[in-house]
Amino acid sequence: MKSPFLKALIGRIRAEDSFGAWENKPDEWLLRDYVVSREEKRAMPIISDPDPDVVSRVEHFYQAVGLAVEQECGLMASPMMKMSHEGFGRVILTTGRLVIFSKTLRDVHRFGFENLGVLAREGTKAVQMALDIIREYPEVAKA
Amino acid sequence: MKSPFLKALIGRIRAEDSFGAWENKPDEWLLRDYVVSREEKRAMPIISDPDPDVVSRVEHFYQAVGLAVEQECGLMASPMMKMSHEGFGRVILTTGRLVIFSKTLRDVHRFGFENLGVLAREGTKAVQMALDIIREYPEVAKA
Repeated sequence: MKSPFLKALIGRIRAEDSFGAWENKPDEWLLRDYVVSREEKRAMPIISDPDPDVVSRVEHFYQAVGLAVEQECGLMASPMMKMSHEGFGRVILTTGRLVIFSKTLRDVHRFGFENLGVLAREGTKAVQMALDIIREYPEVAKA
Repeated sequence: MKSPFLKALIGRIRAEDSFGAWENKPDEWLLRDYVVSREEKRAMPIISDPDPDVVSRVEHFYQAVGLAVEQECGLMASPMMKMSHEGFGRVILTTGRLVIFSKTLRDVHRFGFENLGVLAREGTKAVQMALDIIREYPEVAKA
């Protein structure tokens, strides 16, 4: 719960809580839908478009990656996600003129992680990859 | 009609014609919806989400920019467009790790050009801007 990525994700989720309904809820409760076991995933059909709730969970995930990147290096990282159809899509994060993260999304219906540790690890991995790219091309990231 | 951008746009539109219904139609006819006069624009309401037809016209426009860029420099330029709400959105084109074009879209309901000359000029301008950026950071465009 101490990783900059998880803190950013929790902050991002709490930002949706305009009426304070989740004020007394613990952070773990807010992240509960990010935990999906292997068995649960298998039971989820991957036909048709994914539920809007899943899509916004994925969006919050990558927005949190962007926020954590910004906290680390001071440069704004804006995510852009486009779902095409049937759970396929693409997400990219840019900083200045630099694409710091790019991923093709598949089976978005089943988006989730074995436990909160895996969620934190995967988010942090994306943050690190993005920071590495910024370190490689700092002048493009500021362009 | 000779500009690489317009040729790419016409090619992109003809690619939709799976049944050959437009085979005998002239190029000008295919582009007719891109021409919107100032008076017509004023008469268009900009409330609610824009018509899907307009959105795909905008998408074809930027896909044609990407195709023309690719023809000029040999590097694939993939566009990504995201409409948020009420005619607002964002479009970016990337090549490798480089953002070669980025634009905030507003009032997409009224997307169109005074005449085909203006359409060609605006498309060519976007292609040139993108090519300039690639020339500035060639190693990032190939990354």
